[in-house]
Parts: sequence; C-alpha cells; structure tokens
Amino acid sequence: MDEFVGVVHSVIRSIVPDVGVIDICHDIPAHDIRAGSLTLVRAVQYLAPGVVLGVVDPGVGTDRRAVAVEVGEGEAIFVGPDNGLLAPAVSMVGGAGRAVVLSAAEYQLPAPGPTFAGRDVFAPAAAYLARGVDLAELGPPVEPLSLRPGLVPLPRLEGDSLESEVLWVDRFGNVQLNVGPDEVEPMGERVALRWADQVRTARRATSFEEIGAGQLGLIVDSYGLMALALNRASAGDELGLRAGDLVSLQPPSD
Amino acid sequence: MDEFVGVVHSVIRSIVPDVGVIDICHDIPAHDIRAGSLTLVRAVQYLAPGVVLGVVDPGVGTDRRAVAVEVGEGEAIFVGPDNGLLAPAVSMVGGAGRAVVLSAAEYQLPAPGPTFAGRDVFAPAAAYLARGVDLAELGPPVEPLSLRPGLVPLPRLEGDSLESEVLWVDRFGNVQLNVGPDEVEPMGERVALRWADQVRTARRATSFEEIGAGQLGLIVDSYGLMALALNRASAGDELGLRAGDLVSLQPPSD
Amino acid sequence: MDEFVGVVHSVIRSIVPDVGVIDICHDIPAHDIRAGSLTLVRAVQYLAPGVVLGVVDPGVGTDRRAVAVEVGEGEAIFVGPDNGLLAPAVSMVGGAGRAVVLSAAEYQLPAPGPTFAGRDVFAPAAAYLARGVDLAELGPPVEPLSLRPGLVPLPRLEGDSLESEVLWVDRFGNVQLNVGPDEVEPMGERVALRWADQVRTARRATSFEEIGAGQLGLIVDSYGLMALALNRASAGDELGLRAGDLVSLQPPSD
Repeated sequence: MDEFVGVVHSVIRSIVPDVGVIDICHDIPAHDIRAGSLTLVRAVQYLAPGVVLGVVDPGVGTDRRAVAVEVGEGEAIFVGPDNGLLAPAVSMVGGAGRAVVLSAAEYQLPAPGPTFAGRDVFAPAAAYLARGVDLAELGPPVEPLSLRPGLVPLPRLEGDSLESEVLWVDRFGNVQLNVGPDEVEPMGERVALRWADQVRTARRATSFEEIGAGQLGLIVDSYGLMALALNRASAGDELGLRAGDLVSLQPPSD
Repeated sequence: MDEFVGVVHSVIRSIVPDVGVIDICHDIPAHDIRAGSLTLVRAVQYLAPGVVLGVVDPGVGTDRRAVAVEVGEGEAIFVGPDNGLLAPAVSMVGGAGRAVVLSAAEYQLPAPGPTFAGRDVFAPAAAYLARGVDLAELGPPVEPLSLRPGLVPLPRLEGDSLESEVLWVDRFGNVQLNVGPDEVEPMGERVALRWADQVRTARRATSFEEIGAGQLGLIVDSYGLMALALNRASAGDELGLRAGDLVSLQPPSD
Repeated sequence: MDEFVGVVHSVIRSIVPDVGVIDICHDIPAHDIRAGSLTLVRAVQYLAPGVVLGVVDPGVGTDRRAVAVEVGEGEAIFVGPDNGLLAPAVSMVGGAGRAVVLSAAEYQLPAPGPTFAGRDVFAPAAAYLARGVDLAELGPPVEPLSLRPGLVPLPRLEGDSLESEVLWVDRFGNVQLNVGPDEVEPMGERVALRWADQVRTARRATSFEEIGAGQLGLIVDSYGLMALALNRASAGDELGLRAGDLVSLQPPSD
C-alpha cells in the first residue's frame, strides 16, 4: 500500500506533461533483480519505441551506478540501476551502445533521503530523455562492456537429461522453463520430470483445453518457451514449483 | 506478478500511439468468465465511447471464436473471445449489430505460442479498430444470433420466498444480490435471509453509517441492486457468502 | 476485484477526454481515512499541477459534506469527502483558500444508489474542474476554517524518551516513524527502541546495504523521516510493527 508508482508517474508528467507512460509491471518481489530482469526481457520485444524505466534497486544509496543505456541510434534508452536488471533486455534488442552514469544534479530531484532513486534520479532522467535531452547531458560516459551483465540461466544437457530451471510462474500458475521447443522435441509426446524428490510425466499439448483432468501438460507458452500447465488450474501450486527451482527433463523410461 | 497488462497496453500504443486507454479491471479470478462478464456489465454504462477489450479466455488455442461485435452504428465495439464474456454488456448497451471473427493475419501479431491471444489477436484488433479500421477488414462476418449468450442469473419467486443469487462481493465486502429494490419492497423494513444452514435478518438502510453495530443492512447499492452490508466491515466475510451462492429472501416470520 | 477505479477513470474521460490522469494509490485499507490522508500528504509535494481526487469515504450517504478545496489561486484543487482525508495535504501545499460543497446536480451523475459518491459526485466534479469550470459553479461556498482537520500525530518528548508513532509500513517493510533526523541526532549512532513488551537497539545507517545481517537500521527515508529498516528484509514483519503502533526512542543505556 503505497504511492511510489503514482509519484514516479507524477514526477515524469511534471517534466514532460504529454508523454505516454505505460506500466509494465509493479509486482516484482522486493529486491528480486532476477525476476525484474526476466519480466523486462519478456516484455521488451513488445514495447513501443521510447524510454524504458526499470527500478529494482536493493543497492540504492551505495556506490552502485545509476545509468542510462542507449540501444542502436536512440531507438530505445534504458534507465535504471547498473545491477544486471536491464542487461538481458538491452541484449535482446541489440546490445548497449552509448551509456552514461546519471550524475548531473540538474536532471535530478533534490532528495530528502537517499533511498528512493526511482523518484529522485531515475524518473527525472527518463522524463528528460523522453523530452529530448541528449544522453550525454545526464552524466559522464560509461564503457558499455563495464555494465553489469544479467544472469539468464541456460539449460544443460547431461546424458539424456535436460537440466532446466523455472524462470517464472505466471498469474495462471503456468510454470515457464528455460527450455525451447527444439530441445524437448527429441523426447517425444511425453516427458519425464524430476525435481526435489518428485517425479511426474507431462504430455505435450497445444492448448490448455487439450490437457485432460489430472493430466500435466507441456505447452509452448506465449513467449515460445516450454511451460508446465494444467487445464483451468495452477500447475505451480499443484507441483510446488517456483521461480529458480531446478527441473530435469528426460524421455519417459517406459 | 506479470507483464501481461503492460504488454497489451504497449501493443495497443505501438499501433495507435495517441489513443486513451482505460483499465477497467485486471483482477478477475483466473478463468472466471462469469465474474468477468458481470464486471463488464456493471462498468459498461459508464464507459467513454470507444472500443472495449475483454479477455477471460480459458479456451484460448481451441476453436472458440475470437470476435469483434459492434453495437449500434459503431458507438461501441467489443473485442474478445466468443465465450459469453462480452454478451451481457453488449445486450446492456443495445445488442449486437455487425460482428466478425478475428481471422485476418495482417491485423494480428505473429505468435510464438498459442496461449496469449490477448496480446497477439485481441489487442491488435482493438487497436486497429480504434485507429479507424472497419470491422469488416478484420475477418468474415458472424451472425449476431450465433454469438454465445452470457448467463446473468435471474431471481425466482417461490411462494413468498425470493430465491436470489450473490452476483459479486466488492472490495468492501458488500454482497450484491441479483435483486432490485422493487422486488424486496413488499417485504417491508426487515427481510429474513436463508442460505446453506444459516438464517439472518437484515434491515433496510440508506447508508452504511445507518447500519448499527451487530446489525446486517440491506441497501440499494451503487448499481441499483440490493446488497447485504455492514458498517465499516465486510458482510461477505462475516456471512461467509461468495459470488454464486444462493440466498432466499422472505418477509420475517415474527 | 472490482471495476471501481476504471469506472472513475471512464467517468472523468467522458467529461474531459484528453486530460492526463495519474493513479496515486488504490490500496488504502477500506475505511482507513488516516492511511489515505498520510498517503496523500506524502505524495502531494510531487504531484503535477491540477485537480487531486481523494476518496476514502465511510460516511458516504450521510450528511458528511462532499467538498472541493482550492489552494492558492487555483494551483491545486482537492476534491473529496470533508472527513479529514484531504486536510493534511491541503495544509502541506499552502492551506485552503476557497472551498465549496458539491451540491450542484448538473455536475453530478444520476445515482442509482447512494453509495458510490466517487463515481457519481467526486469524479464528475474533478473532471469539470479539470475542464475549467469554476469552483463556485459546483455549489455553495464553505468557510475554510469549518473544514474537518486531519490528524497527523506528532512525537512527544518525555524526559530523554521520544514517544513516536508508526505512520506507515511501506511495501519493503520499512517502518516510517513520525520523527525527523534532528530529533534523533542527539541520541547518537545507536538508539534504544521500546514498544509493547519489546526492546531493540537500532543503528543509524545511510543505505540499506550498510545495515549488517541481523542488525536493525535507522535510516532517513525518502520523505526525510526516520524509518526502521533491514537489509533486503521487512522490518515491519520482523518487528511486528504496523501503522499506528507507538514506539519509544531513547539513547542506549550502555
């Protein structure tokens, strides 16, 4: 229960009143940079051209850098802490071109305390950039290669077992794995899953309705990755799987 | 925790940058078409003219139709799955005129997977319609009478007992019944309620403040329907009533 | 799960289609005027110029007044119930100038029931004011001194003990006290805290990262007030503190 998001909107509108602002997500678990970066990387390919503001910032107040990172010739500019949050999305749309540290005080709000850079540093920077201020005005350049990389986990093949990780459980309880359709194709219609002390078999499906009662489905989700799913129920809840959990995929033994 | 709504906004703005977009509700319980359709029917009379996008879509990926439905001479266009979600709202504002199946690929996004029609089919359709594309461009016509009807339950008089249903419990815990003031008028100031194995008496009230401590009030709610209410507390929680529960109303026996 | 906010937006846009609308907060606990007024007072200094609409309104339907209150020469206009909700924010930005009771029916929606003044009275008033209608059109003047004051609790020094109150626990679990940095300065780097039957020592810190594992930090928060904080964890949850709780601050005895 707070006014953080509204205040950030208001700060932006005070600087650039007619800009369109789109809320991507405000429910990232506190301090969870990985969840934030995965949310951003899922969304980024669908974003309208402009400035992208991302704030998951447990290091606020320390010497972690506040940055703005340009992709291409200004097609998109990402603003946020240099803690890996922005990196996967930046890579996805072309990689960092110019980048700067946000240190120019004239493009910041005077801060009564050091803990809300979203309001005092990042929102004003995003707004001035949206108003047309050049990146270089906001602070000294940063070598793109020095930006902190993101961590998007890759699956690993061990023998006939594909060691995967849960990237995300969505609002419907679909369990997205870091695995593409090509990687499970060789296993056939049924796939054996192992995690913690559990074993389950999932069956490939092309829609939720096609998954039978009591069956576990393995679908290509809306981002083109494999996801565990139930028909009108939460696979995440039933399987007890959460973001970051490890799951092994194998051809069924029978 | 997801970016679904933000991505839908972003897809719309990519197609029609200056359109105003209003979020009606994003908290419909997963797969609950009835709750979605009741939310929409409550809201529809207050909506500014334009395109209405509704997505509660458990049948995504099956052969359920994706449709756009015009009311009157383009005063409003409803976009969503043909599963009953839109029907009560469409009826409320005048009934279906022209309708089409959303099949024209040039007005859709290429979909990496089959499960997010909100982003790939419905949002682009709504955006192109808002931009002025004619309904007929989006796909072949649909006979309005073939559209799936909605289910808005009606109360039933059995002897002196009015058999009603809970339509909705709002954020304050007010329990909206599918009953209008005229229907309870003959019962007088006090009404006996029966549901499951419970019996309670409610007293007519015209404001929350008028409901005494420990009393159960029966008010005309902000949509003109009868609702069970407490003063500064949740009637839904106290009575254990939820959407879809059946409640009998009778004149008190004493 | 409701459409209240969306309907309010829609009512506003129906009256003044091109206005920018910023959502400050919609998660105020039901009927909690104090929490609403504190949220508004935190946000108000960051708001873009315009009309501020606030609705926490347990007295809806009674004779509590619906008001619009101007600050300065129209720099800001606050619209809401006269129950103390708006008063602290109005004071913060300069105090009430002209004020009126919202009684002119032509600037209201016809209400099917008496319980949603946000939609039927306040939103239309805010929209017409944003469209340029003069305050005086909306109803008869109200003596500013007759407006109900807000209650922002002040700390109290008793001997060497500062008796404070928790104003707010934010989404990260930071526990904001009604105490400024000057008031704790004399206590030094460490401060002894007492509440209910608990005793803890907090250490001054300038960032979350600086707070050690197992340590309780006392930081200047983003509004310039003192807050109890942990590093990447919720102080509110760990300490069991909530808005309205009383906390004594003293120099440590050792």
